Amino acid sequence: MLYFRNDYSEGAHPRILEALTATNLVKTAGYGQDPFCEKAAAAIRTLCAAPEAEVHFLVGGTQTNKTAIGAFLRPYEAVIAADSGHICTHETGAIEHDGHKIISLPSPDGKLTPAMVERAAAAHTTEHMVAPRLVYLSNTTELGTVYTKKELYALHQCCSRHSLLLYCDGARLGAAMTAEGGDTSFPDYASCCDAFTIGGTKNGLLFGEALVLVHPGLREGFRFSMKQQGAMLAKGRLLGVQFQALLEDGLYLALARHANDMAALLRKGLLALGFSLAVPSTSNMLFPLLSTRQAEALSAQCAFEIQDTIDQDHVCIRLVTSWATTPQEVQELLQVFSTL
Amino acid sequence: MLYFRNDYSEGAHPRILEALTATNLVKTAGYGQDPFCEKAAAAIRTLCAAPEAEVHFLVGGTQTNKTAIGAFLRPYEAVIAADSGHICTHETGAIEHDGHKIISLPSPDGKLTPAMVERAAAAHTTEHMVAPRLVYLSNTTELGTVYTKKELYALHQCCSRHSLLLYCDGARLGAAMTAEGGDTSFPDYASCCDAFTIGGTKNGLLFGEALVLVHPGLREGFRFSMKQQGAMLAKGRLLGVQFQALLEDGLYLALARHANDMAALLRKGLLALGFSLAVPSTSNMLFPLLSTRQAEALSAQCAFEIQDTIDQDHVCIRLVTSWATTPQEVQELLQVFSTL
Amino acid sequence: MLYFRNDYSEGAHPRILEALTATNLVKTAGYGQDPFCEKAAAAIRTLCAAPEAEVHFLVGGTQTNKTAIGAFLRPYEAVIAADSGHICTHETGAIEHDGHKIISLPSPDGKLTPAMVERAAAAHTTEHMVAPRLVYLSNTTELGTVYTKKELYALHQCCSRHSLLLYCDGARLGAAMTAEGGDTSFPDYASCCDAFTIGGTKNGLLFGEALVLVHPGLREGFRFSMKQQGAMLAKGRLLGVQFQALLEDGLYLALARHANDMAALLRKGLLALGFSLAVPSTSNMLFPLLSTRQAEALSAQCAFEIQDTIDQDHVCIRLVTSWATTPQEVQELLQVFSTL
Amino acid sequence: MLYFRNDYSEGAHPRILEALTATNLVKTAGYGQDPFCEKAAAAIRTLCAAPEAEVHFLVGGTQTNKTAIGAFLRPYEAVIAADSGHICTHETGAIEHDGHKIISLPSPDGKLTPAMVERAAAAHTTEHMVAPRLVYLSNTTELGTVYTKKELYALHQCCSRHSLLLYCDGARLGAAMTAEGGDTSFPDYASCCDAFTIGGTKNGLLFGEALVLVHPGLREGFRFSMKQQGAMLAKGRLLGVQFQALLEDGLYLALARHANDMAALLRKGLLALGFSLAVPSTSNMLFPLLSTRQAEALSAQCAFEIQDTIDQDHVCIRLVTSWATTPQEVQELLQVFSTL
Repeated sequence: MLYFRNDYSEGAHPRILEALTATNLVKTAGYGQDPFCEKAAAAIRTLCAAPEAEVHFLVGGTQTNKTAIGAFLRPYEAVIAADSGHICTHETGAIEHDGHKIISLPSPDGKLTPAMVERAAAAHTTEHMVAPRLVYLSNTTELGTVYTKKELYALHQCCSRHSLLLYCDGARLGAAMTAEGGDTSFPDYASCCDAFTIGGTKNGLLFGEALVLVHPGLREGFRFSMKQQGAMLAKGRLLGVQFQALLEDGLYLALARHANDMAALLRKGLLALGFSLAVPSTSNMLFPLLSTRQAEALSAQCAFEIQDTIDQDHVCIRLVTSWATTPQEVQELLQVFSTL
Repeated sequence: MLYFRNDYSEGAHPRILEALTATNLVKTAGYGQDPFCEKAAAAIRTLCAAPEAEVHFLVGGTQTNKTAIGAFLRPYEAVIAADSGHICTHETGAIEHDGHKIISLPSPDGKLTPAMVERAAAAHTTEHMVAPRLVYLSNTTELGTVYTKKELYALHQCCSRHSLLLYCDGARLGAAMTAEGGDTSFPDYASCCDAFTIGGTKNGLLFGEALVLVHPGLREGFRFSMKQQGAMLAKGRLLGVQFQALLEDGLYLALARHANDMAALLRKGLLALGFSLAVPSTSNMLFPLLSTRQAEALSAQCAFEIQDTIDQDHVCIRLVTSWATTPQEVQELLQVFSTL
Repeated sequence: MLYFRNDYSEGAHPRILEALTATNLVKTAGYGQDPFCEKAAAAIRTLCAAPEAEVHFLVGGTQTNKTAIGAFLRPYEAVIAADSGHICTHETGAIEHDGHKIISLPSPDGKLTPAMVERAAAAHTTEHMVAPRLVYLSNTTELGTVYTKKELYALHQCCSRHSLLLYCDGARLGAAMTAEGGDTSFPDYASCCDAFTIGGTKNGLLFGEALVLVHPGLREGFRFSMKQQGAMLAKGRLLGVQFQALLEDGLYLALARHANDMAALLRKGLLALGFSLAVPSTSNMLFPLLSTRQAEALSAQCAFEIQDTIDQDHVCIRLVTSWATTPQEVQELLQVFSTL
Repeated sequence: MLYFRNDYSEGAHPRILEALTATNLVKTAGYGQDPFCEKAAAAIRTLCAAPEAEVHFLVGGTQTNKTAIGAFLRPYEAVIAADSGHICTHETGAIEHDGHKIISLPSPDGKLTPAMVERAAAAHTTEHMVAPRLVYLSNTTELGTVYTKKELYALHQCCSRHSLLLYCDGARLGAAMTAEGGDTSFPDYASCCDAFTIGGTKNGLLFGEALVLVHPGLREGFRFSMKQQGAMLAKGRLLGVQFQALLEDGLYLALARHANDMAALLRKGLLALGFSLAVPSTSNMLFPLLSTRQAEALSAQCAFEIQDTIDQDHVCIRLVTSWATTPQEVQELLQVFSTL
């Protein structure tokens, strides 16, 4: 059975497991207050050219989004997001559970523009409405599209003008930075965002998201919020050890680039076979359009997700490559497609 | 200065004040456990032909929506509503503050249809998404449109099929029942809705919304929720006294009918003067389209709300009539319009 | 049947009803943005010698406590309160519902001391615990005891030293200021508290609490919080009209003084009859100790609350006087007591 | 430097790491829907003789308590707990953050009795108070004491009589079952509790708590709650793999027994040296009383926590042993103590 369902189907990249094994019996304080976390945080600050940033390590993406946004906003403040944003669709209302409305904006490519943000901000004028305060973007988006450097800076300027915080969910930040057309690098996020995450779960770790707090006003009491949200890992050192290993020798970007390369190979093959893609994604997720019959046939030989039901006879599926995908698996998948 | 800003610009209808004055020194228990509330609740059960329904009296609309929906739903359950619904726009995120996502559906006339509800329900398929559980409608809608009996029953059947609760925000329920084309009556709401409100604030009371709990499963512990939400009035008898007076001798519907009549008079006049209305509302709210210049001129002589900015040069304004509006005020307003 | 159950058993003092009647048909904007509220707020600022304070009018006490504390605190911050505090006992967990832990301290007389506050603050040392941030006191306390000026200033200084906000629930503030031994006056609250309330519900209004925000940092966005909490009355002018009338010609203190006088008369009579009081209260609530048999006999002729079950055979009851209690009612009650 | 600070100072027991390494490249579905989790859940059902129980795997203890209690209770329902309970002291108000009051009862040994529970339940009589609904106990307690089988069954019966749910936080459940005087076993928890946890973090896993839902009414929608709370691990299989390994060949109880044995050795030595213990704990936590001077001297050679400040000159410290503590480390620590 082929497996193109997501980028978190395996455990961890071998170097991560090795690091965990090598440090296993070292005794440290708990809750992320250990030398491994300190060093990983320092490495991130250096990578991002953000010597003042505060770095926290959390376990999962929904947990990180929820803890961060819940800590940043006052009760009546709201989030602006594209309607395909992860917090809008696949986090079971975690942001609302913490009390905040998401103003979700229709966006065919999953991206926000300054004009969209400005219209949403302008539409909220009185105390009878929520007060937009934070712009949530994800890079790569949930549709595999990627913000360019220029787009990111434009959003940053827009947010500054309107006193909006800019938060980037970087669950697939590595994929964004190494995508075709992805010209951003770590320091751009530290320059543009008030806070952003560097995702490990979908890029080779067992688990782990690094949350970088750039804006000084967002730092106070953040560890209280982490603990209150159940988001402070007892053996926090596991996050430090993993991130240290992931950030060494460029492994982070190398893994992401590999995933993107495998997707490019797959995309090329699919187009050659005459399949259409619903979204012009340039990273590690592809969205082929299939007939229902084709999708069924495919599902006998490959695990994948249905992204959307187009009509009674057509679906859009999602194929995801990862650090662990091999060129051979891509070829096998193309082989299957050629028989559909 | 003319005043067509809303239907809660004055105090109460004189008969309400008289009832409060007449009972002022009677000593009763607090918190709605007094003979006045009992009798008002009994009157509502009779009017609705719902002898088993539980009736609670609350002070305001946002408070009632928030308390009811917060009590009805489990944490991960969500509300389906038209995007113009009051809970979506003008309650400062009160429902989200209580933890629940609102799935808001675009609707030009402010109404939901079974097809819309079904699409929204069908789009929520996994535990990574919220679980739609309650359909919120308002009658009249925030655009002054009105659900017919047939539409209400169709929504009821749709909700039953999908195990969705149906909740009607009746802040302007009287206006809905007496509108041109409004063929519903109290028992229809008790038949179709799991819970609904009978609004007093916008129909002649100082304040007060009656919440009718029809579905037996929604009743347990409701008074705990009221108290926790700060929604249990110490001198609860004030609500009982007012509703008793309002429901006597058909005053409730008479006041609403008067407001609708005044709006009809105004609408006829506006159309005769050549003005366009943005929404085909049939109750006590009208939405004329004006040039920005006209709106400015009007604002010197009449208080009203801007509903929407159409473009740089045009706005849609909102004019509201009430139980207190006089035919003379309507004539004066038309006179002003004729000069714009 | 005599009625000593609480101080909100009637409607309003006649002057309040008169003011409502006199202004009933004046048209104003909604939500507290009307001339009546403006003037009432100005009157409060003058009374309190706090020209910069922001004043908001809300409907009820639980609502006010919940809205204020919910707006003031960050998610992980906690309240320090005496264990008999209203928010600890009789608000159905409203503060916790908004996310905040109350650190409740045992206090036989219902009062907090600086030493108690300091111990509680000192016991919270790490991010694994909540962070105490606000001290809640009620004056009069729920046991009818009263903070003196000296005690209030001592708490103020303690809170300043520890960066704690001081909040006074003044549901019975009038009773506190006019009690035997009550030497505080309005400006003391503005000097000592970051925020405090002036209760109307229990001192002659139909309903209404004035919330005075003294600390400038507590003001931003407060009206958003009010709306979100369902605590913004549509016809907000009703609160302004009532408070204006209540604060005119010293009515507020006169009504409270009368209630206290009636309680003093009753206390004197009870002691003369040989009854014991469980608490040395000096305001409008008395807590006689009765045998269960006596309490039963009393309940046939007088409405009151059971405060506490002492043992199988004894209870502590609560008797409350109000602005509406007459000397004759006190005499009748003493007559009943003499037969127990 | 010796390390007796807690039982989560290392990574995982070697057999756990081996299992993770062996399964690392197996591809599975995410979110706990994989064969490893299935088998681990089946193993727990068998161990507990609870074939119908539903088992969920979560990452941490605070997260599990918060997710479970938040899912079980309606908004106005409250928890009864000993005042030393983990949810009362060291979870930064996580339960209150989810809206629920904890009624915390003073308990010198950290345990609840039926009499305590009954008094708390009886004190909550009206809708103005929260409604107690769930009894939280931890075994071992946070003071290292242990509930016996008899005590557990007595609490179970008490809860049944009062329609209270019984929830056991088993962060150190292994230590409780293997403690001196600990006569409970897995099936007792399934018989007595409506839900309970089997803690892995403090007994040899990298991380992981198994939540066993015994009461059928607690199961519906639980995975929605997990996701909403950020408590559903993307690579959920990591929890399944670890628990499978931990439950094999009695490893779980063996590790806990070892920790207890090391504590017994240490206790015997401390008593022989003339030190006093503040709590008669019988599991893997000891609470010696030291002078401040002794504690300082000790801290130069051993990591530990201060449990309590007794007075200016004395403290109670906490020493914790674990699966990884060696007899030699105990001897070295006793050697240090002999020099204090």
